[in-house]
Amino acid sequence: MLHPVVLSGGSGSRLWPLSRQNQPKQFLTLIGDHSLFQETILRANALPDAGAPVTVCAEDHRFMVGEQLQAIGVANGAILLEPIARNTAPAIALAALHLVASEPEATMLVLPADHLIEDVEAFRDAVARATALADQDWLVTFGIHPDYPETGYGYIARGESLGEGGYQVSRFVEKPDLATAEGYLAEGTYAWNSGMFLFKAQRFIDELARHAPGILSAARAAYAQAQRDLDFIRVGKEAFAASPNDSIDYAVMEKTDRAAVVPVSCGWSDIGSWSSLWAVAERDENGNRYEGDVISVDTTGSLVRASERRMIATIGVEDLVIVDTPDATLVARKDRVQDVKTIVDKLKQAGRQEHLFHRKVYRPWGNYDSIDMGERFQVKRIVVKPGAALSLQKHHKRAEHWIVVSGVAEVTCDDKVFDLHENESTYIPLGSVHRLRNNGTELVELIEVQSGAYLGEDDIVRLEDVYGRS
Amino acid sequence: MLHPVVLSGGSGSRLWPLSRQNQPKQFLTLIGDHSLFQETILRANALPDAGAPVTVCAEDHRFMVGEQLQAIGVANGAILLEPIARNTAPAIALAALHLVASEPEATMLVLPADHLIEDVEAFRDAVARATALADQDWLVTFGIHPDYPETGYGYIARGESLGEGGYQVSRFVEKPDLATAEGYLAEGTYAWNSGMFLFKAQRFIDELARHAPGILSAARAAYAQAQRDLDFIRVGKEAFAASPNDSIDYAVMEKTDRAAVVPVSCGWSDIGSWSSLWAVAERDENGNRYEGDVISVDTTGSLVRASERRMIATIGVEDLVIVDTPDATLVARKDRVQDVKTIVDKLKQAGRQEHLFHRKVYRPWGNYDSIDMGERFQVKRIVVKPGAALSLQKHHKRAEHWIVVSGVAEVTCDDKVFDLHENESTYIPLGSVHRLRNNGTELVELIEVQSGAYLGEDDIVRLEDVYGRS
Repeated sequence: MLHPVVLSGGSGSRLWPLSRQNQPKQFLTLIGDHSLFQETILRANALPDAGAPVTVCAEDHRFMVGEQLQAIGVANGAILLEPIARNTAPAIALAALHLVASEPEATMLVLPADHLIEDVEAFRDAVARATALADQDWLVTFGIHPDYPETGYGYIARGESLGEGGYQVSRFVEKPDLATAEGYLAEGTYAWNSGMFLFKAQRFIDELARHAPGILSAARAAYAQAQRDLDFIRVGKEAFAASPNDSIDYAVMEKTDRAAVVPVSCGWSDIGSWSSLWAVAERDENGNRYEGDVISVDTTGSLVRASERRMIATIGVEDLVIVDTPDATLVARKDRVQDVKTIVDKLKQAGRQEHLFHRKVYRPWGNYDSIDMGERFQVKRIVVKPGAALSLQKHHKRAEHWIVVSGVAEVTCDDKVFDLHENESTYIPLGSVHRLRNNGTELVELIEVQSGAYLGEDDIVRLEDVYGRS
Repeated sequence: MLHPVVLSGGSGSRLWPLSRQNQPKQFLTLIGDHSLFQETILRANALPDAGAPVTVCAEDHRFMVGEQLQAIGVANGAILLEPIARNTAPAIALAALHLVASEPEATMLVLPADHLIEDVEAFRDAVARATALADQDWLVTFGIHPDYPETGYGYIARGESLGEGGYQVSRFVEKPDLATAEGYLAEGTYAWNSGMFLFKAQRFIDELARHAPGILSAARAAYAQAQRDLDFIRVGKEAFAASPNDSIDYAVMEKTDRAAVVPVSCGWSDIGSWSSLWAVAERDENGNRYEGDVISVDTTGSLVRASERRMIATIGVEDLVIVDTPDATLVARKDRVQDVKTIVDKLKQAGRQEHLFHRKVYRPWGNYDSIDMGERFQVKRIVVKPGAALSLQKHHKRAEHWIVVSGVAEVTCDDKVFDLHENESTYIPLGSVHRLRNNGTELVELIEVQSGAYLGEDDIVRLEDVYGRS
């Protein structure tokens, strides 16, 4: 059985303002109907003999992972929570240890959660070839046939053929300069290092033991302390934090003598920037990609993305990226989008929030959106999923008014519990213990008006929480 | 006495998305602390011997005019309402008739409400020279010394000197092509036609009688039917509508033999586009003008205007105009901003609203802002000015929840009248007769949650209204 392992640890800021620290690229719906994470899961799940996917993600993203898996109806193998980011080698080590615990012969297919693959048939064919090599104890990496001399990726040089359409790895090379990249392209034996791997879990563990024993021992210790928390597997934090911070390439692939590469041309993109999203997106006859409510005059070569309830008008512009969100709009020259990082750095330095959260914040029970704010008040639209409940809580510095605008909410307020229907309201006095629950089968939407001298998210005392949040 | 007459009839769409049909350019605060209209009033009011200003504006803008006058504390001469736009000649005719009714010898200074004048001393000096010529029965136009060969304005060629630093008008010329404009600049005897005039009201009426009797008779008939409505003078609609639609230039100035021009160089701009606003605004060392929350990297020659609670980030762009509002964002090349008109036309054709109203809508009693909207609900932030009251009203298709977040509101709901304080709420059932009033000295702010199947602004039955709205 082939076990997909989806690495969802990225906190990419390169698609800001759409990506935020608490909602990175892999969870965004950029092309098509699903997020990149969901597409990755669905693609892996459809492979022959695929087991239930194992996801490795950051603690902060666990509810998003759970919800996105549920939304596509894919049975969940395991969701391993990284207590802290330690790069790919420790993350893959956790997954390998988890797999061999129940299936010593497990083969794992490691897939970053944020890649786009257009030609699924070619991908499946490559997986089949890689599986054949993994059966012969090779650690296989997928080498993307380069279409152009990209300087932003590492390259893999192939050596001797191993049959099965695979090759021994001759060497890994760092991101080259343009002339070197052009040379690689001309030679025809170099491929982009995609970050996708296929190997027996035990073989990977053995190679770790040889080349990166510190990572293995940290992962073992962390996994030994693993505790189930709802659908999640929470490993030992301090033990995991003790691991060296290293990529699988540095820690294992560049050192092992069992590295193989399977070349593949499958319409692969890591969507590493707004310009690469533009490059893979369908565009109109003027080279524009529009999403949402866009009205344009004489616009060419641009990516324009409007957000809900807002329109964007463009006139006479070319090769721009314009991305709108409820609290921030980016306007960048398409060939300068790598500097989105500079903007994010500026936001960090200024102690701001726009790189951390969207105005709409996702929670395990649903989401809230801060639709208005004034000196002593804030207005939120709150959405509670069927069967979900907010924590039993109280606030020291604010009272709340709730008006249900759709669905039926069950309200707890001190010693009273009652239902609130559409067009009904209630008042939660300052200091009262309250909870909001959705026992129905439809979403509950309500408007919350907060009134008080201090309205920060940290004025919350959680007395009880079904999601294990302290 | 010199009577300033401020023409505030413009419905300019050239500064969209900041200007909207119900809030045109003259009412926007573009530079400094006041709107262009307020600046115009203040500038006129500070002239020696100036009477209380007479404003001519569109019916729809009357409350904004009243409010903006009140805000700057300038005593209001009269606010004449144009029932329909008929260009400048009929508007000035109304003002002239109004002035001579009480002061046959009145001299009037006609000023468009949407011009910027930086050098007030030079302007005052020109007004003094023009007054001297008006005393000699000249109809004086102000000719702006051209700084560059602008092709977007008409020009005035001067003839013989009349003394007082004024000249007879030799001829008016239409917007020239570039070569012609360059020729005018070189000759040194041409000036931009500013649209500002100074003459005796009766002289203007006499010239109208001679050259545009249709306009005069329509204006006379309309003014004869004038009715006071609060602070406003409402003239006969049908009578006024019967007037030819003509500018003062075509109707009078180009035909009379008493046209004079006073050349002036006073830092004048009509802010006819975003690029001309950029040109007159203070800019940083990279030629950028930023307003609001803007973060930029390698940006030059641009005008960037963020709106409340939203940031704009720019990277690597040059010579752009980026203007954000709560419901629409414009991104245009600075030399293409005349095509804003094309966008507005597209909005009209599509039957949309973004060229008509801002999300925040001003009313005589204050304003409301539609902060959120869903399938069967809408959330508004409502601000009621001290002493103001909404109409006594009811709705057929929606109920409303009101939560006061600042100030004290007096609520009428059917037969009950009560005060609602900060952090208090009430419910207005569907069909009940209600009113909101602010008897205090502070603003009342409240959040209104509407619930119902239809939430359009037209579901309102007004039973009583202190502002005379039907």
